[in-house]
Amino acid sequence: MSEVLFAQLQQLLGERHVQRSEEASAFLTDKQGRYVGAVIAAVHPGNTEEVAAVVRVCVAARAPIVVQGGNTGLMGAATPDASGRSVLLLLDRLNRVRAVDTDNDTLTVEAGCILQHVQQAAEEAGRLFPLSLGAEGSCTIGGNLGTNAGGTAVLRYGNTRELTLGLEVVTAEGEIWHGLRGLRKDNTGYDLRDLYIGSEGTLGIITAATLKLFPLPKAQSTAFLAFDSLAQAVAFLSHARSGFGAGLTAFELLNADCLALLREQFPEAPQPFLGAVQPWFALLELSDNRGEAQAREAFESVLGEAFEQGLLANALIAESLAQSQALWLLRENMSEAQKRAGRNMKHDISVPISRVVDFVAHTDALLQVHFPGVRHFTFGHLGDGNLHYNVAHPLHSTVDEHMAHYAALSLLVHDSAHAHGGSISAEHGIGQRKRDMLTRYKSPVELDLMRRIKQALDPNNLLNPGKVIEVSRS
Amino acid sequence: MSEVLFAQLQQLLGERHVQRSEEASAFLTDKQGRYVGAVIAAVHPGNTEEVAAVVRVCVAARAPIVVQGGNTGLMGAATPDASGRSVLLLLDRLNRVRAVDTDNDTLTVEAGCILQHVQQAAEEAGRLFPLSLGAEGSCTIGGNLGTNAGGTAVLRYGNTRELTLGLEVVTAEGEIWHGLRGLRKDNTGYDLRDLYIGSEGTLGIITAATLKLFPLPKAQSTAFLAFDSLAQAVAFLSHARSGFGAGLTAFELLNADCLALLREQFPEAPQPFLGAVQPWFALLELSDNRGEAQAREAFESVLGEAFEQGLLANALIAESLAQSQALWLLRENMSEAQKRAGRNMKHDISVPISRVVDFVAHTDALLQVHFPGVRHFTFGHLGDGNLHYNVAHPLHSTVDEHMAHYAALSLLVHDSAHAHGGSISAEHGIGQRKRDMLTRYKSPVELDLMRRIKQALDPNNLLNPGKVIEVSRS
Repeated sequence: MSEVLFAQLQQLLGERHVQRSEEASAFLTDKQGRYVGAVIAAVHPGNTEEVAAVVRVCVAARAPIVVQGGNTGLMGAATPDASGRSVLLLLDRLNRVRAVDTDNDTLTVEAGCILQHVQQAAEEAGRLFPLSLGAEGSCTIGGNLGTNAGGTAVLRYGNTRELTLGLEVVTAEGEIWHGLRGLRKDNTGYDLRDLYIGSEGTLGIITAATLKLFPLPKAQSTAFLAFDSLAQAVAFLSHARSGFGAGLTAFELLNADCLALLREQFPEAPQPFLGAVQPWFALLELSDNRGEAQAREAFESVLGEAFEQGLLANALIAESLAQSQALWLLRENMSEAQKRAGRNMKHDISVPISRVVDFVAHTDALLQVHFPGVRHFTFGHLGDGNLHYNVAHPLHSTVDEHMAHYAALSLLVHDSAHAHGGSISAEHGIGQRKRDMLTRYKSPVELDLMRRIKQALDPNNLLNPGKVIEVSRS
Repeated sequence: MSEVLFAQLQQLLGERHVQRSEEASAFLTDKQGRYVGAVIAAVHPGNTEEVAAVVRVCVAARAPIVVQGGNTGLMGAATPDASGRSVLLLLDRLNRVRAVDTDNDTLTVEAGCILQHVQQAAEEAGRLFPLSLGAEGSCTIGGNLGTNAGGTAVLRYGNTRELTLGLEVVTAEGEIWHGLRGLRKDNTGYDLRDLYIGSEGTLGIITAATLKLFPLPKAQSTAFLAFDSLAQAVAFLSHARSGFGAGLTAFELLNADCLALLREQFPEAPQPFLGAVQPWFALLELSDNRGEAQAREAFESVLGEAFEQGLLANALIAESLAQSQALWLLRENMSEAQKRAGRNMKHDISVPISRVVDFVAHTDALLQVHFPGVRHFTFGHLGDGNLHYNVAHPLHSTVDEHMAHYAALSLLVHDSAHAHGGSISAEHGIGQRKRDMLTRYKSPVELDLMRRIKQALDPNNLLNPGKVIEVSRS
């Protein structure tokens, strides 16, 4: 049976675009090595019609279809199960920029385009595509759409969902929905676009998107700020939003332990606030459409007011592009610094900004009671209420001893985020890793609505089955 | 049967909150007098639990449920059919502001709140809720959510969908989905929120929403601009977006005939550009977070560059708040001016901004071939590609003779919008008036996806049946 399907896929796509499981091992393990899958075939269709044809033969053979972009996801959403019954759909050949429309400020790209290439295509057209995240050099826009990726520019520009006007999607039956609209207003029926975005390949296969572009800022100012408390940082943020408006394009928080870790792991990098006693820091970026002079003036006036009002302990303002890049590098090095220091437990949570202070105080204290000595590497996108609330082993114990408590510790963190009106996955999605947690935090009403939608759009449960939500097979 | 239901509803809500059809006539005719309905009862539940209870008794009796806000819609979405089998659900008693959270920049309000009251609640908290449209004094936020209302601030802040973080919804089974999240990032499953928004009461009943707030601008500058051509206006808009960035908060276009109509119908109002020969005009608004001086400087520099580059024929800059309000009044008087001049054919279309020039040239010419002498009152939100493409009777004929051609003329306009990659309903929705047009402009694939969603979330087809999309009954 699977040999028949393999031969059909070869015939559809040509032999060199269909791989056996053993040839495709790079795609069958997730980035963190947590999941390993096996497949009937890994296929590389060359265009949307071929994607649709692949889906149709898989449906006929009742073979599950797992779609994968840059394989940079953290939840195992793009890794097939180990049964060897699935087909892995790789969209690397769908990598064309289909259209650039500067008057409409839109860009139409295929799902397999690397995010960085999308950013570059926008810049070549004199525009900004603002989605920006650590994996941008290898993740694809299709993956960003599948998970509704966030990143560092959400504060000003929104998540991937808010950056998208139209989609082209292959349905679970192998039909094509031509929804590549470049419209800012279109109230003609149900919002299919936003249903596909963030559905992690479980409702349809996104093959192309029409994305919003923005003017390139003419000037950017960066500062590294120190705060006497997290509450002060929250109050400063409110002041900065009011003073800068949409000019405030980043506000990235780090606690003092993060800064110390960066110093330790990157001794050659700049060492801002060496010897500072403050517990919290933030990287602030202001963008301006008029130019340097106006940006500088706004920057100094808003920071000056903040000092006067006691909303800021200290500020280091980048005086050059090089200094600005050095400050950004601190933030960008956080992942690597943690990796070098040994594994820790990562939590991608969000809460309302007004509850961040309570969440951190409550959760830090709770963890110290139950797991004494754990170290908190808390950082993230304060303007979105999104913290990477990461917890490292106590100095008196080993990484392995610590990691053995992962499930119990994460439960406390997620319960606390939920109790503070928050989310257990702010930007990383659900995939297979958090699927069963959903039943703890979502009401039966919501789970039932999700299941009905899954069954309506994928009645055979063949699109990335077992990810996001489990449906009972009929 | 209907008497039993009437009595059940009285028992649930109290007698004074349940009206018979003849007592509820104000709610049973739409704003434009196009549709007249009849009902078993018009009910005014006092809270979300009562809404859910009403739905449950209606489901048990198989009575359709039509929800209505301020009854300001233009598509007949909130008017029940004439069968007298339905229950009309009025949410006027769900009119509380549940929470204001300034640190999180969110406001939680019930669906029956008048939009203007929501704007005021935000302003009292020192914040801006930017949704703004002609009917704001009487439309409700529930109706705005149901239709994904647009208005004049979409260019900067987006439609109602982009302004909403969370919803509370009563499902078709009378259960409550507690989705009132105040989170900027939450990637935990399917995007139910955006599916309910814009579904016009056909998938669920929105009872409350958590909305985004923004800083109040510190200064606003207004100008009235004249253009030698529509192409020049489009090129200017691109320049203004680049120069002002997010400061550009309105760009409202009017053709010369609109301006002449305003002069004729409102001779006492200001008369900008009296005697001007330009064919197109626009109202531009710049908002600034720092203050008057900076706003004025940016304004003059961007307009100055535009003159130098030949992107602008003339500009009138408001020198005071009174002058600014007088300019805005021009735009706001457009509806009333048209009404006073006699009925015309209204079309709420959108196209990509890059195709606006071609759309208008092509459609104007086509109409002159088929309906010689018709007059074009074209205005709208150029920054959103959204034109109110309205067509008035030729001076050699009567309004009634003209209106007799409504269907044929609209077909040309809508076909043209569609051919230019556009939408036949940019902000007004579908309701009953445009329902059958959808089958002309949407692919069978998309219609089928919409039907599946409708059947999944409202399997008994009791929520506003016959609106947006027709499903065949099982």
